[in-house]
Amino acid sequence: MTPLEMPAAYLDLLDGPHTAVLATVLPSGTPQASPVWFLRDGNTVLVSTVSERQKHHNVARQPLATLTILDPANQLRYIELRSSVTVEDDPSMSVRDAVVVKHGYTDGSSFDKPGTTRVTLRLTPFRIIEH
Amino acid sequence: MTPLEMPAAYLDLLDGPHTAVLATVLPSGTPQASPVWFLRDGNTVLVSTVSERQKHHNVARQPLATLTILDPANQLRYIELRSSVTVEDDPSMSVRDAVVVKHGYTDGSSFDKPGTTRVTLRLTPFRIIEH
Repeated sequence: MTPLEMPAAYLDLLDGPHTAVLATVLPSGTPQASPVWFLRDGNTVLVSTVSERQKHHNVARQPLATLTILDPANQLRYIELRSSVTVEDDPSMSVRDAVVVKHGYTDGSSFDKPGTTRVTLRLTPFRIIEH
Repeated sequence: MTPLEMPAAYLDLLDGPHTAVLATVLPSGTPQASPVWFLRDGNTVLVSTVSERQKHHNVARQPLATLTILDPANQLRYIELRSSVTVEDDPSMSVRDAVVVKHGYTDGSSFDKPGTTRVTLRLTPFRIIEH
């Protein structure tokens, strides 16, 4: 399946230093929805997470996640990316570091305890809600 | 089960005019996560939604939803309410109107087409993440 194209009218939200909410599903069926930083990579979105985090377990079990980005300047405007997820290793922490820089920090390692393992969740949207 | 108590340290987010993200689960298993206005009612949270909306169908099918409120002044602070949901009628539109007033508008009916039916989703948290 060809990935959907990211809508040009929402690149400000997709490429700006915004905090989004990533929703996954816990084994109980309850949604988990927590703030994440992210990085657009073409028509996909990358989220760096510590390997032990619940959101990683959730997508390993069921590779579906939804990223919602609100416009901080207009509370009625948002984009929702309903996505399939693949998990990628990030041994060099390059995705973590790029996300940290996007948000105005310089030292990605200051966000992790020594010995932390991170993975990258790559979200490929199959439905995009533009509002 | 006694409802959890809303944490005093997060009443600013629970009672301020913030836009939250409500995550539910679509029949496909994909999360739906969309912005909502809301109103705290003691240890529960009320969300007014148009009866035909997908989020209402989702919680009618599986009465679980998670509300996540981000602190606009501190991108690392948030509260997540993993909740059971009951659906209540709102024939007088009193919940809609109270939510609209909380967000600085005066006329709730301007948000709906004539003939709209609304329901109230009452979220009772069974797990609260404070971050």
